[in-house]
Amino acid sequence: MLTIGQQTYLCSLDYAVSLFKGKWKAVIICHLNDRTYRFLELQRALPGISEKILSEKLRELENDRLVERLSYPEVPPRVEYRLTPVGLQLFAILNSLQHWSDSYIAGESR
Amino acid sequence: MLTIGQQTYLCSLDYAVSLFKGKWKAVIICHLNDRTYRFLELQRALPGISEKILSEKLRELENDRLVERLSYPEVPPRVEYRLTPVGLQLFAILNSLQHWSDSYIAGESR
Repeated sequence: MLTIGQQTYLCSLDYAVSLFKGKWKAVIICHLNDRTYRFLELQRALPGISEKILSEKLRELENDRLVERLSYPEVPPRVEYRLTPVGLQLFAILNSLQHWSDSYIAGESR
Repeated sequence: MLTIGQQTYLCSLDYAVSLFKGKWKAVIICHLNDRTYRFLELQRALPGISEKILSEKLRELENDRLVERLSYPEVPPRVEYRLTPVGLQLFAILNSLQHWSDSYIAGESR
């Protein structure tokens, strides 16, 4: 067993899955892989996500140090999001998972 | 959007995560990686899992063709579980995720 913060996990794998389970986080990580995104730009890339949920998910990813929030002192203020180095490593694994899934789904539907 | 069975997913990655989210499935896949296991042997290797939950999770993994149930006509009947080829591919990705998590956790606690 592994205790991190207030939570107990079965092992480090169980903990890793907890970092992106739920509907949006894995998909947000994959969208952020190539460059920085502004909030609205990211919201448009993820059809169906509300402003509230996207803010919440980005804050959680930021707290887990997977995503970095860059705030520029401009008028109007500009805020961008990008993956941290450790978030980029996680993206590479999720990207393999997505490729696996594509061929798994193709196999299932044969 | 992707519809598989009765469910809708954001994309193939969202679907892949749904295959092992929740408390036990990723851990069961990782335990099964090296050989076949009998039910009780697997239950002993996963402290805290009940017979009911383990049966349910194995059945779900079997329905998703990630785990194979081998039943031998012996007295008493012998039943074993092992990963399918596609389950083994998923294991390799979850194994990378576990390694990533180990170093992520080590980094967090520095």
